[in-house]
Parts: sequence; C-alpha cells; structure tokens
Amino acid sequence: MEGFSSEAEYLEELRRRAVLPAGFRVSTGRLTFTPNERPTQEPYRMNLSLLLADRPTEIFAAVLTRNAFPGAPVLLARNRLREPSVRGILVNNKIANVCTASGVEDAERLLSELSALIDVPAKQLFSVSTGIIGWSLPVPDMVGALPATVEALHGGDAVDFARGIMTTDAFPKVRSVSVGEGSIVACAKGAGMIEPNMATMLVFIVTDVAVSREDAQAALSAVAERSFNRISVDSDQSTSDMALLLSSAQRGSVPASTFQAALEEVCGRLAEDIVRNGEGTGHVIRVRISGMQDEATAVAAGKAVVNSPLVKTAIYGNDPNVGRIVSSLGDYAGNSGVEVDRERLFIRLGQWEVFSGGVFHLDRDKETRLSSYLQEAAMNPRIKGYPQHDRCVDIHADFGLGKAEAVVLGSDLSHEYIQENADYRT
Amino acid sequence: MEGFSSEAEYLEELRRRAVLPAGFRVSTGRLTFTPNERPTQEPYRMNLSLLLADRPTEIFAAVLTRNAFPGAPVLLARNRLREPSVRGILVNNKIANVCTASGVEDAERLLSELSALIDVPAKQLFSVSTGIIGWSLPVPDMVGALPATVEALHGGDAVDFARGIMTTDAFPKVRSVSVGEGSIVACAKGAGMIEPNMATMLVFIVTDVAVSREDAQAALSAVAERSFNRISVDSDQSTSDMALLLSSAQRGSVPASTFQAALEEVCGRLAEDIVRNGEGTGHVIRVRISGMQDEATAVAAGKAVVNSPLVKTAIYGNDPNVGRIVSSLGDYAGNSGVEVDRERLFIRLGQWEVFSGGVFHLDRDKETRLSSYLQEAAMNPRIKGYPQHDRCVDIHADFGLGKAEAVVLGSDLSHEYIQENADYRT
Repeated sequence: MEGFSSEAEYLEELRRRAVLPAGFRVSTGRLTFTPNERPTQEPYRMNLSLLLADRPTEIFAAVLTRNAFPGAPVLLARNRLREPSVRGILVNNKIANVCTASGVEDAERLLSELSALIDVPAKQLFSVSTGIIGWSLPVPDMVGALPATVEALHGGDAVDFARGIMTTDAFPKVRSVSVGEGSIVACAKGAGMIEPNMATMLVFIVTDVAVSREDAQAALSAVAERSFNRISVDSDQSTSDMALLLSSAQRGSVPASTFQAALEEVCGRLAEDIVRNGEGTGHVIRVRISGMQDEATAVAAGKAVVNSPLVKTAIYGNDPNVGRIVSSLGDYAGNSGVEVDRERLFIRLGQWEVFSGGVFHLDRDKETRLSSYLQEAAMNPRIKGYPQHDRCVDIHADFGLGKAEAVVLGSDLSHEYIQENADYRT
Repeated sequence: MEGFSSEAEYLEELRRRAVLPAGFRVSTGRLTFTPNERPTQEPYRMNLSLLLADRPTEIFAAVLTRNAFPGAPVLLARNRLREPSVRGILVNNKIANVCTASGVEDAERLLSELSALIDVPAKQLFSVSTGIIGWSLPVPDMVGALPATVEALHGGDAVDFARGIMTTDAFPKVRSVSVGEGSIVACAKGAGMIEPNMATMLVFIVTDVAVSREDAQAALSAVAERSFNRISVDSDQSTSDMALLLSSAQRGSVPASTFQAALEEVCGRLAEDIVRNGEGTGHVIRVRISGMQDEATAVAAGKAVVNSPLVKTAIYGNDPNVGRIVSSLGDYAGNSGVEVDRERLFIRLGQWEVFSGGVFHLDRDKETRLSSYLQEAAMNPRIKGYPQHDRCVDIHADFGLGKAEAVVLGSDLSHEYIQENADYRT
C-alpha cells in the first residue's frame, strides 16, 4: 500500500475494513469533566465506547500486560476470564484508572450501571481504561453519559468505535480479514508507551467464526507474542494494556490453524499500524536479526536497536549513522553476555551493505544514497488523521551464529514525540 | 554549590580544580581534515590532546567498555595494561576509530610518530579516540599536528586538556580532591550515549600520591561501578569508553582505603557533572531505590526510571506525571520477574509523598507544588559553557522488601537532545 493523500481517503478504506462481523454492535458517547487532581479547572473531554455482542459468548480470549502495577481494568479482566461467558466491553480514554483508592469499585460501579441499562449481568462485561495514570475516573459524569451511549449502539462499521478509543493516536486503526464464512475485525489504540508486551495498547478483536475457547486463547497468545510484543515506540510498557477477543460464532467454525493464520495476518498489520501512528513517528524502523542462537536473543538484539535513542534520533534526522547501529548491538551483546563474533557480523541498511568482515564499508557515495533512502521513508509527523505511506527503514543484521531470527518494529525519536509527551496532561 | 552565572566564573573555578598533580604535563593541538566518508567536502576540526607523566609509572589502572564491538583504542588499551609501566595518553575527538579496516594500525602509527617526538616507547602510550563510529582517523593530518602538540606541553592546570577532549559536551568537566601530601585530579568528556558501563565517556585521572598498582586498579574498578556505571543520559553504551588512572607517586603514599575514598569523591562528582552536561539536559534526575532485596535489582529499577522516555519527557516539560514513574517501575518488575508488593511501595517526588499503601496520593494543590519543584530544578539546555546550578529532581522509591539500596542519575529528554543527535555528523 502506498498510503493515502487525505484523511477522507483513509476513512473510506477504514470503513471497508471496519465492517462488523455478524452479532456485534458498537457505539461511542462523549462527556466532559474536571479532574480533581488537575491544577487548572479547565474541563477534559472523554469518550465512552461500547462493544456489545447480541448474545453471551463462551468463545473469548485475552492477553494482559505484564506490568507489576496493573490498572483496575486488568485486575477486573483477570476475574472476567474465569466467567463461562461474556457479552461486551466498555472503554474510556483520558484516564487509565490505575492505582487509585477506589479504582476497582469505580469500574464495577460503571459496569453495574451499564448492566441495568442493557439488562446484561455486570460480570459479563469488561471495563477498559486508557490515559493518565494515577488520577481517578469521573464516575458520575461517565454514568451520566451511559444512556446516550447505549442508545447509539449500531451495527455496520466500527470506525467511530476505533476513533473513540484513541488518546494521542494520530489516526484510527482497524484491520480485518475474511476467514471461512465470516471475518475477523480488529481495532487498536496506542501511541506513546508502546513496547513489547503490549504497553498502553488496547486491541479489540471480534469475529463471527467459531473455534473452541481454548483454541481462541492459544491463537491470541501466540499471535500477540509475534506481533504486538515485537513493536516498540518508546520502550515503556504500561499498566493497562490488553487485547480482548470475542466471537459471536454466527458464521460457522473454522480449523484452529486457519483461525490462527487469519488472526496473525490481522494482528501483524495492526502492530505495524500502531508503530506508524506512534507519537511523533517520522520513520518506521524494521529490524531483522538473523543468524542468532535463539529467537529470544534475536528479539532482544532487535529491541536494542529500535530502542536506542541515538539510532532513533539519527534516523529522524535522515542521518545514516550506522555506527550507532553497531554500537547498540555491541552494547546489548556485551552487557547481556551474548557471545558474538565481529568478523561474522553482517549489516545491511536498506539494500546497502554497511558492515561485514569486522569492519564498516562506508564511502561518500554510499552515505549519500543512504541519506536519500532515509528521506524517502520519512513521514511528516505533523500530519494527523492518516498514514501517508507504509514504507519502513529496513535494517538487517546477521550474526552468523545460528539459525534463529526475528523481526522487530520501532519508530524514530522526533521533536513531535517530545512535544506530545512533555505536556501530555495539559 | 549554587552554580555559576557566567562561563568566566566557571572557568575560574575550573582552573582551581584543574591544577595538575606533581609530575604531569598536558597540551592540546588542533587540526582540520576532510573525512573520506562524508558526503560534503566541508572540513572538520579535531583536537589532539596529550597527557604525559615526567617518568614512566607502574602505578596505573583502567576500566574499559563492555561493548562487544569495542573500538581500536580499547583493544590497544587491553595490551597496554599488560605493560610494566606507562607514560602518557594521546586523545582525539571527532572520530572514534571503531571497526575500520586499519583501526589498530592507525592508532599504532600515531603512537610510533609520537614516540619518536618525545623519546618514549610507543608501548608506554595510550591512544584514545571519541566521536563518530565507523569512520577512519585522518592519520596524516593528525601526525602533522603532533609536533606542535608536543611543543605545547605544560604543567599548571588541565583546563585546555579538559576542553580539548570534548565532543558535544556543553562544558569542560574537572574535579579534584586533596589526599595525603598530594591530590587526585580527574577530567571527563561525555555527552550523549552516556549509560551504565561508562558509555562514550572518557575519564582521565592523575594523582601524585602512591598506592600499589593492585590497589589502584581495585579502587578504580569499585568506584567506577558506583559512579560512572550508575548514570544514564540516553541508555546507550558506546564502543569506546574508558577511564584511565596514572600516578606519578611524587608526593608519598597513602593507605588504599584513603585513596579509594578520595577517588570516590572525585568520581562521584564527575559522574554528576557528566549527566548535567548531557546533550540537551534540562533536569538532572536522581533516583534513589531503597528497600530492595539486592543492590543489583535496586540499580536496575533506578535505571528503568531514568531511562523511561515518558518519565524523561514529562520532567522536561515540568509535568509531575508520577504515574509514569510507577509504570516504569512496574514495567521493570513485571518483565524481569522481580516480586514486588504494591501495598509496600512508597514513592516520594522531591519532599512530597505521591504513592503509598498501593495508591497514588495526588490533589490539585500537590500537583501545583510538584510542578513548581520541577521548574526550579530546570536548567536552560541552550546555555552552553557552564552549569547554571547543581539542583536535581529527587525521586525516592522504597519497595519495602529488603535492605539494599542504590542511587542512579539520569537526565530528562529534551528538544535540544533531539536537535543534537538528529544531525550529530553534520
């Protein structure tokens, strides 16, 4: 895909991707509130987004953050996963509901109010929050917005839902794929704080094809490991990230392997969308590590490159400073005790070999070509609403030590990122 | 120390600190060259700095980078450490001499030319380089500048030496302390790429008091671990960092414990100088982790906080976004398998308690005070030449799990950092 030249063009494509599978409805409500913790009285805007299955389903799965201080939504979700069936998900942005005195009660209160409105047991509902950590949910204001949100439930497409769950996201993210007689549709939010283990990333996946609950969980766990857990925007992992999958089972069943392959395609694309839409992302960096002893080491080495502020800033500046790539790999290897051989290391940036036989291969002409290559892969981080293209900066490092390999995605580090995060709460 | 109001004021203090111990001379020469690898023909400036002991000394010590792809100077230094005695150090900035085809030969060539000029065996000399990784040293141009550099050798103070070794450093860094009948004087360079294990940091320590060579090495190793290895500007560790210590032994000897205590004072202060002078540093962040099971875990937890881009950008923006502190700690603990108890976690920012009993304690008034606290600790990253003050942003997290603790220093993440690193080579 060469991307889009306008937001309207992107939204048209998004509506096509976001057509809901049979048996699901969505809606998004809005409210304003004034946080108790905020110095100024200026009100905040919040979206309340609802995803509801027509009937309870026992086919659902989840992957939750590994952060040791998880938010109330994660604690709540752990309980919901023990339920025989679930029905829907209520999502709010702006405040993440993490480690506040009444966090879990706040979530339960919201769900019981929603329960009364839609006549669904609260224990069949998830409460999911994203935004500022440490502040309290404005429960009364949110409760006040519930009736209109329920009223607005509709089938059709999930574009408004995908928009409603955004925080500082540059554009809404939806991917879908046909499978068997039905489809899998996935929406995601996530901008800053994106790292392995799905940090401050919310992913909601709905499908109308059936597999067993066990197969659904196995597929989601395996796919998340190879997609969402291999992207990094700023190496932080949040207290609140989760991926939830629900099936309405209204379009027949498919083999577990077919389901997992389809899910992997959807999640793989969505993971790249999330990096491309990272706060202030100007370049998407795709690092392939090969010739490694084992996959975990390959992933860690790739992460070392995409998380190096010096590599990230150089690429932002379209400066092919390949020395920083070698330094970040050597940094990782030397300090994690991985035995490497400089003579066997091979590094390519784009199509150009820059390191082999233990030495760099750089000259004036190659530096010029590499710089042009980086410029062509750049996006304008100030353009919001749609991705301009899906080009990546490809870095390939082969260590010549084994057969394992892995691909890791990351972003550059830009002025726009600093701007976004230096005053995130204002 | 409340810092300095002008560069002149700082240099005056620096001259006081930089008075050379007996038995050492220094000088700095300059040259221009055109790198073969550079797209444009515009010439570069390079400094050649020389530190020479009047006589060979068998009292010397070193700590070298753990990076798995070390530069030629590090490989060379490993050999020099096997020599019975050494005499001096030649330092160049601008190009780091890492992984080029002729890297080690280039360094040996420089040292043999220098050897002939000062009548000192090349094997008693160190060649140290810092700057761009992957490009070759302009050996002929450097050789051409050697005679003038030797000619300029002088006693007195090491201010010009401390300036000569700088790359993107905001100001020269020298610390000294009296010990026994003599003193210890240490100069450092280091701006970006500063991380644990002394990344792209060069530290040169001279003293005229004697301890055994073994005690000197033991002291330097122990002190580096608790000072230079506990600072982080951007979490990258370079291919070239090293700390070298030489003693002229001209002012008598001191007990090993006295020497180490004095060395620790000098290196501790120098480490903080290095963070304060980090590329684009607006705030110095001092994280104290206590109540931890062991020191290594305390250090790692502290590093997780000072290396979190979200914590760093919030502090740059004077935004007391303490949720990000808890998130970065939970991120570290959850993904490194450290068992923690949210109920026992206690966090203070400045003098204000922000987290205890498993929940945040934030209100409008406290947020306002915290924001003022961050503003008062800010420096103007655009002011170069001298540090304006030595205030830190103090973060204290007690995990209530054990008796171990550690202090880690880091910097915020600013627009100036991006600017510096997006076009470092232009």
